[in-house]
Amino acid sequence: MKEKIAIIGGGLSGSLLAICLAKRGFQVEVYERRGDIRKGQAAAGRSINLALSTRGIEALKKVGLAEKVLQDAIPMTGRMMHSVKGELNYQPYGKSGQYINSVSRSGLNIKLLELADEYDNVKLFFNHKCVDVDLNINTAVLENDKGEKITVEASIMFGSDGAFSAIRSEMQKTNRFNYSQNYENYGYKELEILPLKDGVFQIEKNALHIWPRGEFMMIALPNPDGSFTCTLFLAYDGEKSFSNLKTKVDVTAFFENYFPDAMAMMPNYLEDFFNNPTGSLTTIRCNPWVYKKFALIGDAAHAIIPFYGQGMNCSFEDVSELDEIIETYYPDWTTVLQKYQEARIINANAIADLACKNFVEMRDLVGQPAFMHFKKVEQELSETYPDVYRSQYSLVSFSTTPYSYALAQGYKNEALIQYIIEHKLEDKIKDANVMMPLFRDFLGEVTI
Amino acid sequence: MKEKIAIIGGGLSGSLLAICLAKRGFQVEVYERRGDIRKGQAAAGRSINLALSTRGIEALKKVGLAEKVLQDAIPMTGRMMHSVKGELNYQPYGKSGQYINSVSRSGLNIKLLELADEYDNVKLFFNHKCVDVDLNINTAVLENDKGEKITVEASIMFGSDGAFSAIRSEMQKTNRFNYSQNYENYGYKELEILPLKDGVFQIEKNALHIWPRGEFMMIALPNPDGSFTCTLFLAYDGEKSFSNLKTKVDVTAFFENYFPDAMAMMPNYLEDFFNNPTGSLTTIRCNPWVYKKFALIGDAAHAIIPFYGQGMNCSFEDVSELDEIIETYYPDWTTVLQKYQEARIINANAIADLACKNFVEMRDLVGQPAFMHFKKVEQELSETYPDVYRSQYSLVSFSTTPYSYALAQGYKNEALIQYIIEHKLEDKIKDANVMMPLFRDFLGEVTI
Repeated sequence: MKEKIAIIGGGLSGSLLAICLAKRGFQVEVYERRGDIRKGQAAAGRSINLALSTRGIEALKKVGLAEKVLQDAIPMTGRMMHSVKGELNYQPYGKSGQYINSVSRSGLNIKLLELADEYDNVKLFFNHKCVDVDLNINTAVLENDKGEKITVEASIMFGSDGAFSAIRSEMQKTNRFNYSQNYENYGYKELEILPLKDGVFQIEKNALHIWPRGEFMMIALPNPDGSFTCTLFLAYDGEKSFSNLKTKVDVTAFFENYFPDAMAMMPNYLEDFFNNPTGSLTTIRCNPWVYKKFALIGDAAHAIIPFYGQGMNCSFEDVSELDEIIETYYPDWTTVLQKYQEARIINANAIADLACKNFVEMRDLVGQPAFMHFKKVEQELSETYPDVYRSQYSLVSFSTTPYSYALAQGYKNEALIQYIIEHKLEDKIKDANVMMPLFRDFLGEVTI
Repeated sequence: MKEKIAIIGGGLSGSLLAICLAKRGFQVEVYERRGDIRKGQAAAGRSINLALSTRGIEALKKVGLAEKVLQDAIPMTGRMMHSVKGELNYQPYGKSGQYINSVSRSGLNIKLLELADEYDNVKLFFNHKCVDVDLNINTAVLENDKGEKITVEASIMFGSDGAFSAIRSEMQKTNRFNYSQNYENYGYKELEILPLKDGVFQIEKNALHIWPRGEFMMIALPNPDGSFTCTLFLAYDGEKSFSNLKTKVDVTAFFENYFPDAMAMMPNYLEDFFNNPTGSLTTIRCNPWVYKKFALIGDAAHAIIPFYGQGMNCSFEDVSELDEIIETYYPDWTTVLQKYQEARIINANAIADLACKNFVEMRDLVGQPAFMHFKKVEQELSETYPDVYRSQYSLVSFSTTPYSYALAQGYKNEALIQYIIEHKLEDKIKDANVMMPLFRDFLGEVTI
């Protein structure tokens, strides 16, 4: 049996990591602060559903879990925009057959824990909160729900303990640790669109719905029971803000003004609005991710805002890349951890930037005619030249191309499309003789 | 007697704040982690001397301490650059009569503590380390050197506990606290140029000396005993770096190559190099600075790198502005603290940016002919049009104009001087008919 590895945090990335390490024969111990989600103790304060896309699926495939997860997922082939008047406008995410998947966070976590638990070399500990870490002697102190403390020692420790990571807090005290946490002035509130009587979806099932309102927005993702989980993203302060929605009258007027079509399908929106907490949105970056035998992974290393639907996908890719690096460099853990952070930090920073950029796109641009036209041109380019033109969205969501590449490529794509629109070349898109030189100029080397 | 105010941290800003609050009749308690510096327990790990300029002096004047401090200070009227060959080049900091002041950090701190101690309503506690804070019930737990813990309650609590503030760490756990700590890839090492036998300065006394070497540099500030405190700023890693200075042979060769003139005056440089710690350079920003009855001040709120010589000056200005806001808004503490952070955060961010920019200037640009020419043109503008043209350096160091204004003005000044140089107008500088229209174009509204 190989050496012992402790994983602090048994959420999505922690449990996937446990499986990967178990498959490689390590003794794996997972310490999770919350109770066992398999016993119905759903994690409070986290979003209900997530958008699973290619990076996440590829990572799940490696542990044989992709099929099982996708069985319970609902494909979303594009964005469905709802205007104030209830008009619909649909933008596909990619080419025909490409889609992202609405999955339940808790359902996914349960499947991962169940699989991890099948390995004899995995031990799962719930209700164990990390209260102290000694980065120098490779130990962590965990306190269980009876107030008992145990000290765990391991050859390698992973901090997969989320955006408010205890491991990262300890690393922050070490010399020359770069760190930033930046909050949006926006909060979010989860609400619900109910199904019709027999679990029938009231609006298009296979789409991510957006009510873009410029300064704020609501989105909705489908659930298997016919409901949609809605999330209202709204500023904390200012004219249109949570601070101005104090009473039922305020909230009712707000929904009547801005979301009349959705409101009709949300009988509990007032109760939900006042009972559900207002979540905050933060971007956390740090560097390094590794200190001696400790390494951060998932949200602990890079909390991003949810507007590209990539938080979990990025975390799963962390695990997947780490697993490949272990394949190559184990048992040289120093090199493994070094290569891991070299590979991932640049890409975590890129998706953090992309998520911030996409927030503006979702809440504002998607509702504007100029942007819709831009997207239509892009869609035609993608479909006509699938091997040459790849949209940023498709690079991020339907490929495992590094996020940093997608970030850079997006700027090139934008310049190209702006040129096409400015020079009124929209009706020449199918003409390869016109387009190919442009691709070369704007996108760099392309293969014909 | 007015309410009790606790100050966590009795360094430069904490002790100045204690005096200001004592003068206003508050019951002031200061808790300092280290021993009493007045008993000769010098604070380890901090720079030995500091550059005191107008903002700091104005703040000291308010408590009647400026004269006493300046008596022991050494005026530095400009930068003296040392080339590898030992050639000297001098750039004045401002107009004739303008200078910054080399002062001893511990000497200054002692004077502040002595004055604070003269007030009956100030209690000073040394060897009291803040180990816990409850931001909601306004308490702090302090542990003394015997391991005893006391809990302090106060109406208002200030965290003046430095770059690694315990109060700020606690605030960082509150919702929507924006925070970043960014380390330079540079460390620093303090060394010493000794005086000649009778306390005679070996190099120009009234200057800040710089050995700019592009990627790295050494600086030296004069001390009253005829010595200079030298600081070597060098990358941690890379070709020319601390990591490549492992042996006495390495260090000797490095000094022979790059600092031959200084080396001859630094008989202990090898011992100092290997005995003194390598300090790190960090920029810390956060927002808000206030949580309920707690407020951050000084380095706890804004650690900046030392290349504009403004860390302490900015901290003293924090205290000074806070004092004025108390004058206006007390006893409405909520408004006091709100106005305080509104006034200061933007300026702390500006001086943080300026300090980063000045690092490149000091280690690299000051040694380049084009930059020397730029500075010569600027000097002539300042002297010819003292009421119209104000250099960024002078706005920062010789005025109390907000740092944010100085930051913006610097860019305008640069554009103006570049225009003058590009159009070869250097010999027209004295001609107001040529210059005034340029001032209007580049600097905005000017009074003739």
